[in-house]
Amino acid sequence: MSGRVDGPAVSGRVEEPPTPGRLVVVGLGPGPEAQLTGAARAALAGVTDVLGYGPYVARVALAPGQTAHATDNRAEIERARTALALAAGGRAVAMVSGGDPGVFAMAAAVCEAVEHGPEAWRRLEVEMVPGVTAMLAVAARCGAPLGHDFCALSLSDNLKPWETVEARLRAAAGAGFVLALYNPASRARPWQLGRAFAVLGEVLPAETLVIFGRAALRQDERIEVTSLGAADPGRADMATCVIIGSTETRVVPRPGLPPLVYSPRSAGPAR
Amino acid sequence: MSGRVDGPAVSGRVEEPPTPGRLVVVGLGPGPEAQLTGAARAALAGVTDVLGYGPYVARVALAPGQTAHATDNRAEIERARTALALAAGGRAVAMVSGGDPGVFAMAAAVCEAVEHGPEAWRRLEVEMVPGVTAMLAVAARCGAPLGHDFCALSLSDNLKPWETVEARLRAAAGAGFVLALYNPASRARPWQLGRAFAVLGEVLPAETLVIFGRAALRQDERIEVTSLGAADPGRADMATCVIIGSTETRVVPRPGLPPLVYSPRSAGPAR
Repeated sequence: MSGRVDGPAVSGRVEEPPTPGRLVVVGLGPGPEAQLTGAARAALAGVTDVLGYGPYVARVALAPGQTAHATDNRAEIERARTALALAAGGRAVAMVSGGDPGVFAMAAAVCEAVEHGPEAWRRLEVEMVPGVTAMLAVAARCGAPLGHDFCALSLSDNLKPWETVEARLRAAAGAGFVLALYNPASRARPWQLGRAFAVLGEVLPAETLVIFGRAALRQDERIEVTSLGAADPGRADMATCVIIGSTETRVVPRPGLPPLVYSPRSAGPAR
Repeated sequence: MSGRVDGPAVSGRVEEPPTPGRLVVVGLGPGPEAQLTGAARAALAGVTDVLGYGPYVARVALAPGQTAHATDNRAEIERARTALALAAGGRAVAMVSGGDPGVFAMAAAVCEAVEHGPEAWRRLEVEMVPGVTAMLAVAARCGAPLGHDFCALSLSDNLKPWETVEARLRAAAGAGFVLALYNPASRARPWQLGRAFAVLGEVLPAETLVIFGRAALRQDERIEVTSLGAADPGRADMATCVIIGSTETRVVPRPGLPPLVYSPRSAGPAR
């Protein structure tokens, strides 16, 4: 480390040592500005560059002098490398993620890129700023369906074999966990949720509660409560988090108000 | 519904119809003010009464005219009933919870109290405001250990049989989920975490990564990364969330910086 004495430069232009640069991975929460934490807001205010999937970058009100870099939503590892390269070049970079960056989002891709990238990337300051992930927003909007033990599972088989998804569905539902399904459907993955419902139907009764939580806490929010036997996989899209109750999950009807769905904190014996 | 015509009262004091009252269950996040969402802050500003476990209530800066009701941390259902009764009496009540109210916290107790309480409670406006739950804060502070499928499990056997806890540990770890353990230890429950490590040791290799995340993002934060074979259950207390990696979870050493722990998004075949 070379020391640096602050004070007026006495002659000519002083060559600054290269700024180390840094990367902060920021969770934007479910969408609306009000769902950001103060720490996320402060992190965004302190960077030179904001990078991420276009719709997430579009949520950030850029300050004068900040540069936006919008990417498509594929090739997460490439996006992570771009952000790290910018940071290694001396920029203060925010990589933005919907929800929480550590849940099926960019934080793991950044770690992976650091592990396999140039040695210099291991010396960069990398910070993750947590946020409200989708399942918490959906749960809040319908009561407390995640009120006892639960699992979060991505239905995408882009990065793991479908057999692994099925084995995990069976194990988790069979052991009495509530399930939060991320990435339930997309144009490229149209059949996975229907197959997941079929697999779960072998383990859980048809009356098990199912919640389609689309765009929770956003203006276009749509929360639907149904049962495993009646659930139409076509109700889910990229913006949906699907919650599958356990056999303990209950619904409380309310006159003139949406029902409350909750999983009681107490649970029965192991099955 | 009786209509109410707005306008100046022409004589004497007009008797107002009773205010309906409402209950909002607010997630305070991991602790520091900066981890609150704007929505949580706004919800707290809009109530007449703030109720909850003492240390959580103490985090809230009360506005003039707001009343605090601090309770102990047991008898969650009694606390929920107290809050609902206040709301039914016409007050605007915030029930505060650390982290997210829907994850091993007050939201489920409120739903349960509504279900089994007087009919009038079903007509109350009840809102849950999500927050950053402990496992997300711990994960953010050490990389992305929850980067693939994971489970959240309470080790408390106050409300479920210990056999259920063991069965769920085996099922989840055996299927390749990362595990986030809430309520790992307390003075009244000193042996549960050691037993959980022993059960997991039957399913997972001794080198599996274990994170003790205590008071993440707070001033007294202590994050320790160790292995299942070496993990000392005595390192956990009430303020700790313990994360158990899967066989895929990896550690990236960094010179002069804490290591990054992450679970890659891609996973191997089902075991």
